[in-house]
Amino acid sequence: MKKTNCEVNDALSIISGKWKPAILFTLISNGSKRFNELERLINGITPRMLAKELKELENNQIVKRTQYETIPLKVTYEMTEYGMSLKDILIKLHEWGINHNRLYK
Amino acid sequence: MKKTNCEVNDALSIISGKWKPAILFTLISNGSKRFNELERLINGITPRMLAKELKELENNQIVKRTQYETIPLKVTYEMTEYGMSLKDILIKLHEWGINHNRLYK
Repeated sequence: MKKTNCEVNDALSIISGKWKPAILFTLISNGSKRFNELERLINGITPRMLAKELKELENNQIVKRTQYETIPLKVTYEMTEYGMSLKDILIKLHEWGINHNRLYK
Repeated sequence: MKKTNCEVNDALSIISGKWKPAILFTLISNGSKRFNELERLINGITPRMLAKELKELENNQIVKRTQYETIPLKVTYEMTEYGMSLKDILIKLHEWGINHNRLYK
């Protein structure tokens, strides 16, 4: 059977990128967070990059953005239930990465 | 605790790329294969791209290249035992990708 495996690439395209794993792990481990809280929790990310990555994750149904009609305006981000289906894969990738670095870096 | 999660990115850098998942799945499911067998089994890959991806996988200890002193020369590629530690992650990514495409594409 001829192999293309675009499904793996489809999954990878959603979680790959310099900042997406850090954003996902932060939301998975800390729950709902405001934009500037996320910015503080993720080492070195710029507001522009955080906004871009959150938008992509939101478009892919991984993250939910909630806006509260308060003054000042309050916006929070959290993992969707669907997004949490990535938790196991991310943890396994994290463990594999740690082991790989220990062995070969 | 400030998050960077470069370990996930380190793991992703090894399995990501248009052709790596297909090469990994082909070797995982078919065992040791010669170059032109791999080329035939992977839809649309060029010899140049296959050689480049195999070299990277070999450098990362994921794939083993074996050369036989026969005439004509015979070279085979197979997953290393270490490389097989990626099998579970790849299968989970594959399943997640199928499900995501079914829901959102």
